[in-house]
Amino acid sequence: MDNRPIGIFDSGVGGLTVFKEIRELLPSENLIYFGDTARVPYGGKSVQVIQKFAAEIAHFLELQNVKMIVVACNTASAVALHKLKSESTLPIIGVIDPGVRAAIKASGNGTVGVIGTRATINSGAYQERLARLRNNVKVVARACPLLVPIVEENLLTSEIARLALKMYLEDFRSMNISSLILACTHYPLLKSMIDSYFSGQVALVDSAYETALEVKEVLTARRITAESSRSGKEQFFVSDTPESFAGIASGFLGRALAGDCIQHSWQNEF
Amino acid sequence: MDNRPIGIFDSGVGGLTVFKEIRELLPSENLIYFGDTARVPYGGKSVQVIQKFAAEIAHFLELQNVKMIVVACNTASAVALHKLKSESTLPIIGVIDPGVRAAIKASGNGTVGVIGTRATINSGAYQERLARLRNNVKVVARACPLLVPIVEENLLTSEIARLALKMYLEDFRSMNISSLILACTHYPLLKSMIDSYFSGQVALVDSAYETALEVKEVLTARRITAESSRSGKEQFFVSDTPESFAGIASGFLGRALAGDCIQHSWQNEF
Repeated sequence: MDNRPIGIFDSGVGGLTVFKEIRELLPSENLIYFGDTARVPYGGKSVQVIQKFAAEIAHFLELQNVKMIVVACNTASAVALHKLKSESTLPIIGVIDPGVRAAIKASGNGTVGVIGTRATINSGAYQERLARLRNNVKVVARACPLLVPIVEENLLTSEIARLALKMYLEDFRSMNISSLILACTHYPLLKSMIDSYFSGQVALVDSAYETALEVKEVLTARRITAESSRSGKEQFFVSDTPESFAGIASGFLGRALAGDCIQHSWQNEF
Repeated sequence: MDNRPIGIFDSGVGGLTVFKEIRELLPSENLIYFGDTARVPYGGKSVQVIQKFAAEIAHFLELQNVKMIVVACNTASAVALHKLKSESTLPIIGVIDPGVRAAIKASGNGTVGVIGTRATINSGAYQERLARLRNNVKVVARACPLLVPIVEENLLTSEIARLALKMYLEDFRSMNISSLILACTHYPLLKSMIDSYFSGQVALVDSAYETALEVKEVLTARRITAESSRSGKEQFFVSDTPESFAGIASGFLGRALAGDCIQHSWQNEF
């Protein structure tokens, strides 16, 4: 038994899709969410800077006495997970391995497509793990920088979204992919548009649920689950002001935040 | 005579449009440019966080012994200029006043439109200054969050750009604006598309050249221009890695960088 919280972080609000699945699967766990809203987005930034930001947040979560860290951000998982693991004694899991397993399951021996931010795709993390998990898997990957702003402008069913998806997904269609990993926490909000683009013929994989399953497995294997009789608490930290976060967050969660939302900003030293 | 450099900063690369005009108008001046590429973009962030970032950069530039600071970022000018001025003894100018003066000149007594980031438009800075400079001016302002990513994806003449401009500018057309302030350093790259949307009937104002004129005026009035016989040097600082900056920067400048590009990152203290 271990009632310490699980720390979950993302560059902004997108990781709440992972938070939500963890909450549903593990109602007794205390959860702490960190959204780096002052420095969002990570997707166009360098490996070095993303690793630095991720390390700062992991360190902050450790100071909150978490028992485990979930990197609920594809970009940070792709470029910083390995480094975070090497610098901490806590169990740390990302969203890539769970997503890759789900894609392999859904895809059989077919070609797997991956869409994500520039940093995620350029890292080659998905491509490498897919190849490691299944011999001879064919992977096609593409960065889609316009999709996050389209989601954030709430243009989910617009002609602009349709044209952007056509531009980014055309090659996937001609390559006959059998599954597509939505390797960015914003993309599931475009799921129905993507599904109709492929006429329902491609399995769309997002890793939020699979990640929650892995969290449960790790907690169970290490015997660090919380007492099952209790009801888990929630706490939120953001690096920008909490006001705008709370509104957007309830959109992602489908309900109001059940805990405090506190601003944490780092003191920059010259 | 004063050969100390002029410090110019922006959230990323966009401020190079201002840098370029200053360089052309003032070839003898040493220029230092700071692009906050690790924390870009500012446009969707809070006043508090943008003021903090701007103060950190201004402080960094002061340590480089600049004689003047130019806030070459509409968002930072809109929400942080006043605060920066109150905290420094250096002359500090932004891009808003020059843009407003140009718009009034171009617009006569007509209605002025303003497009920019969420933070710029929500600040009301353009609306307030336009009203202060001309009685009874009618101002229509709108945030256009999709335009920066469209420019960064180099979709300048695409159908996606056309649809996004239609979505954002429709109201301006029905309101018969006579001039439109492009209140974000990325927007001038969409100038020809915007011009054809309005069939050439609306004066498009970007503040880069006007800002350079104001820099020259301030230097002259304070007698702190550099010796005219010399050829000004350039130096660039970025908060993310320099590699990607150099490539994009030469696109903005129309030439390769003429000086070093150095990474400056702040040490975050917990």
